[in-house]
Amino acid sequence: MTVTRIDKSHRMSQGVRHGDTIYLAGQVADNPLPDAKAQTEEILKKIEGLLGRLGSSKGNLLSATIYLSDIRNFDAMNSAWDAWVDQENPPARATVQANLAATKYLVEIMVIAAA
Amino acid sequence: MTVTRIDKSHRMSQGVRHGDTIYLAGQVADNPLPDAKAQTEEILKKIEGLLGRLGSSKGNLLSATIYLSDIRNFDAMNSAWDAWVDQENPPARATVQANLAATKYLVEIMVIAAA
Amino acid sequence: MTVTRIDKSHRMSQGVRHGDTIYLAGQVADNPLPDAKAQTEEILKKIEGLLGRLGSSKGNLLSATIYLSDIRNFDAMNSAWDAWVDQENPPARATVQANLAATKYLVEIMVIAAA
Repeated sequence: MTVTRIDKSHRMSQGVRHGDTIYLAGQVADNPLPDAKAQTEEILKKIEGLLGRLGSSKGNLLSATIYLSDIRNFDAMNSAWDAWVDQENPPARATVQANLAATKYLVEIMVIAAA
Repeated sequence: MTVTRIDKSHRMSQGVRHGDTIYLAGQVADNPLPDAKAQTEEILKKIEGLLGRLGSSKGNLLSATIYLSDIRNFDAMNSAWDAWVDQENPPARATVQANLAATKYLVEIMVIAAA
Repeated sequence: MTVTRIDKSHRMSQGVRHGDTIYLAGQVADNPLPDAKAQTEEILKKIEGLLGRLGSSKGNLLSATIYLSDIRNFDAMNSAWDAWVDQENPPARATVQANLAATKYLVEIMVIAAA
């Protein structure tokens, strides 16, 4: 199966398509504000953009792993998620607390999608 | 490839089948007792049920990510896992500590399986 | 699709190939030194060996999830990662902090690869 990679750095790709399956890098907010809802909204826009460039869309999400630096932001994250996700085609999902690469990041989301 | 989703809410699906690959949501115990072994047993039953409804079984597990709210429950979780897993066909696995959506949850398990 | 498992214990497989997709177990250093860079180097050698036995290589990595017991080891881990990864074909990646199965483990890496 063909592998396509987008937004490559020397370290990682932001998205990789393998046949009909797409793996995105963990996405964080580019300009993180101290608000988990706003960070989530920015992340979800980035995910949608990456999926689009790989021939997919949010209605094709298969799985999402959501990391919150503070699990108390669960509801704030969900308020952005619930407004965004394709409610007819939501992915499998897990949400756990984990410190992220920098303290300014409150949310990181890593998804797998169908092409 | 066809995508099938089961136990959909407005937020997530508990299971998604994409061609021959199945992604389950992170499973937690429905009525969590303060005992990681009992929670793991309940989770593994739920995983088995979801896999069955998607045309698979525990012998087809490919990968499992296990989150423990306290890594000191590693042995308790494993005592339930070892008794359950198909020892001829065990998945790849990682276990890490992470706070979960509510403090009552001691264990969360997210798996990928072959259909 | 055929499923092949290698380095099976009663608990898990170190690698599972499902058709053209490979899932490895979370890899840790066998003889962990108190140095995240050295642990990462050892882990990456193990990943390369497992991928090779399953008919793949580091240039076929699709996704990597990296767990650090202390996120302050981010740069040390990356110094080993950047020297190792196929810079033309890097995977999608996420790095988060999580306590691991034993305190001696500073790094754990779980990957998905194309065969």
